[in-house]
Amino acid sequence: MNLGKVIGTVVATRKESSMDGLKFLLVQHLDHERKPTGSQVVAADAVGAGPGEMVLVATGSSARQTAATDKRPCDAVIMAIVDSWSVDGVTKYCKSDD
Amino acid sequence: MNLGKVIGTVVATRKESSMDGLKFLLVQHLDHERKPTGSQVVAADAVGAGPGEMVLVATGSSARQTAATDKRPCDAVIMAIVDSWSVDGVTKYCKSDD
Amino acid sequence: MNLGKVIGTVVATRKESSMDGLKFLLVQHLDHERKPTGSQVVAADAVGAGPGEMVLVATGSSARQTAATDKRPCDAVIMAIVDSWSVDGVTKYCKSDD
Amino acid sequence: MNLGKVIGTVVATRKESSMDGLKFLLVQHLDHERKPTGSQVVAADAVGAGPGEMVLVATGSSARQTAATDKRPCDAVIMAIVDSWSVDGVTKYCKSDD
Amino acid sequence: MNLGKVIGTVVATRKESSMDGLKFLLVQHLDHERKPTGSQVVAADAVGAGPGEMVLVATGSSARQTAATDKRPCDAVIMAIVDSWSVDGVTKYCKSDD
Repeated sequence: MNLGKVIGTVVATRKESSMDGLKFLLVQHLDHERKPTGSQVVAADAVGAGPGEMVLVATGSSARQTAATDKRPCDAVIMAIVDSWSVDGVTKYCKSDD
Repeated sequence: MNLGKVIGTVVATRKESSMDGLKFLLVQHLDHERKPTGSQVVAADAVGAGPGEMVLVATGSSARQTAATDKRPCDAVIMAIVDSWSVDGVTKYCKSDD
Repeated sequence: MNLGKVIGTVVATRKESSMDGLKFLLVQHLDHERKPTGSQVVAADAVGAGPGEMVLVATGSSARQTAATDKRPCDAVIMAIVDSWSVDGVTKYCKSDD
Repeated sequence: MNLGKVIGTVVATRKESSMDGLKFLLVQHLDHERKPTGSQVVAADAVGAGPGEMVLVATGSSARQTAATDKRPCDAVIMAIVDSWSVDGVTKYCKSDD
Repeated sequence: MNLGKVIGTVVATRKESSMDGLKFLLVQHLDHERKPTGSQVVAADAVGAGPGEMVLVATGSSARQTAATDKRPCDAVIMAIVDSWSVDGVTKYCKSDD
């Protein structure tokens, strides 16, 4: 999985019908120091993530292992909202501090 | 999924017979600011996308989860046409403005 | 899929027995302007491609969706020979001009 | 698989329910000389790895081939703890020297 | 598949039990000119490859399409030992010359 931050939303009315009802969020990838890596992904939301939240994104066939995305042409899913992470014992992000 | 813009078409008459009837479109990847990332992909079209349209492309095994691409040697599919997207509440693209 | 040009061949007699009979071609990835991207791949040939030809390569599990590669440890397949492609209405490659 | 070093942990209470009980570790990718490559991944732990340990990470659908991750939206798993590695006969890492 | 050279071995006694008996080799990726690309992978060995040999590595789910790796958390496998390769008719590598 990759760490990321929800920075936006994508609207698409004309799409594969199996994608109806899925919310597409724009996620900026972050490194372990919380800096943007320069890449981003559009992920389906399986956990009710919102703008500004730190999330985990699973990609590839693993992105279809949720009730919301099963058997759909979806290659990226937000499957967790991050509360905190730490590196070498130092907290790099803590949601309650936001 | 990745954001992209349809910039061209690819014609291939000699191909795996299961690919007959699929339309191959050349898609330039865009970042969230609408700038080309420098990479591109040839994607099968599952939604009737046309030149200049902003689209979402799903790759890998997820690209085979449409009626058009099921069980075919296809690793990229356009599965949505983008109407608009926004970052931090600011609209970065809106189709009706085109 | 990615655009590429067949630039060479790879010979390997000692291999997984299921790979017997498959032809391995060296493919240089090209961008939409026909310039090498700097990466390459060794792909199994499912369509009878030859040296110098422009091709489409499918990767990952999609590379196994041909009769030649089914259930084999093959992660890249040439599944089409390109006749032509165009960008913004301008022909960037046409086989008959070669 | 990729060589990596466990550098941190990620806590996420709101997640796909199938992910309950999985431990998320932050893994920094290393090259064969033991230098960070600049990328990292959040991997589920299938072998009881701890901070500072050198590990192998499997990604994609292969990350779901463990009892802990089967059928879950998990695209990276630590499936081995590295004891040592050598390049051209020279030991580059040996756990017992740590 | 990617061209690579076996440059080392990785030892891991604590691992997913299904990986028991598999040999992990460190493979340096090479381009078509035989120059290292700067990336490497740890691959399971399905063909009895040894140090210094040029090999082909298959990744992703295709890495599990061998008897040795089936249903295992393995995302890279050496599935062929390269005898030779040529580019534009010029031999770039020939094992018997080593």
